Amino acid sequence: MFITVEGGEGVGKSTNIDYLQDYLRNHGVELVLTREPGGTALAEQVRELLVQQREEKFDPLAELLLIFAARAQHIAEVIEPALGAGHWVLCDRFTDATYAYQSGGRGLDPDLVRRMETLVQGDLRPDFTLLFDAPVEVGMERARNRGSLDRFELEEIQFFERVRQTYLRLARESSGRFRVIDASQSLECVREKLHTVSTELLDCWSVRHQ
Amino acid sequence: MFITVEGGEGVGKSTNIDYLQDYLRNHGVELVLTREPGGTALAEQVRELLVQQREEKFDPLAELLLIFAARAQHIAEVIEPALGAGHWVLCDRFTDATYAYQSGGRGLDPDLVRRMETLVQGDLRPDFTLLFDAPVEVGMERARNRGSLDRFELEEIQFFERVRQTYLRLARESSGRFRVIDASQSLECVREKLHTVSTELLDCWSVRHQ
Repeated sequence: MFITVEGGEGVGKSTNIDYLQDYLRNHGVELVLTREPGGTALAEQVRELLVQQREEKFDPLAELLLIFAARAQHIAEVIEPALGAGHWVLCDRFTDATYAYQSGGRGLDPDLVRRMETLVQGDLRPDFTLLFDAPVEVGMERARNRGSLDRFELEEIQFFERVRQTYLRLARESSGRFRVIDASQSLECVREKLHTVSTELLDCWSVRHQ
Repeated sequence: MFITVEGGEGVGKSTNIDYLQDYLRNHGVELVLTREPGGTALAEQVRELLVQQREEKFDPLAELLLIFAARAQHIAEVIEPALGAGHWVLCDRFTDATYAYQSGGRGLDPDLVRRMETLVQGDLRPDFTLLFDAPVEVGMERARNRGSLDRFELEEIQFFERVRQTYLRLARESSGRFRVIDASQSLECVREKLHTVSTELLDCWSVRHQ
């Protein structure tokens, strides 16, 4: 199973991913936890180039290609070997984030993202995607409280609104793959929903392995 | 005029580029000298990722996409603005090098390079390409004498032989655009040939501007 976790800034992805991986491991799942952009030494160096604040205006196409370069390395070195060995892969952000940020946020033609997706991933797609969703103000407030902001976190509020709406549209279009969790609720409510989703994942896995 | 200079390791590109730019500037050409991978702050950081020696096995597709990411940034920030302002651009390596190294050398499908070329460059192609050619042993000997070798220069001799043969094939296929200079000759002979080519370039320019 290839599971991705998506969401804008400050929606609590990290803590919930920790919870999810513990839950799955405790139920006997061999799991590789990783993230994008990143997940390998080289891909983390590319991530650093992407998030660094810089005076130079970043060309949106260059940004897109850096993300897919890191993704190609990550797939070849981590994701495909893990899936090939029968492990689960739990990945903090993947190509849905590219549609949300680079196409929705930056305004790049989604067809460009689609062409790169096909070129780099072949038919590799997540089996299951958890989207943590919260109003932009809520997320931004939390992100600001975390400390200094990176190049993406410094974008204006309209950018994040476009990111959020793109995520929600993707979730509607691929409702079989997506589970949307309202991250503006209390932690207890989020955990309860996460528990339901985790059970569903394990059931789905058992059925496949019967 | 968009002029590119190509060639394998140790064929004397740098000194001859210096000579060429002086010659053209002395004849009244407004010229931007640049290089790939690189040519902008961000693209030079990507170059650094590409040439660094590393233990991690570099995925060939990730390498290709990093090169085109740097190229997208370079085109948007340097090449197109310069050409748009009516300047000449003299670029030390461009997409022919990607065909030679990533397809010829690494064995990537040339159609992948072609797809990326179309996606990133649209219809931007060099008007004129100078290929400095020398037997691989000659070039490698010179490169070794320059000091420590980067990740590309550490490749085996067969890799450079494939690079050379790909360059020569490209030159045959696009003979209108390419001028091949035998870089194993004496410096005087190379300069003489370079002088002829420079005159041809200026003539071609004058005709276009009549």
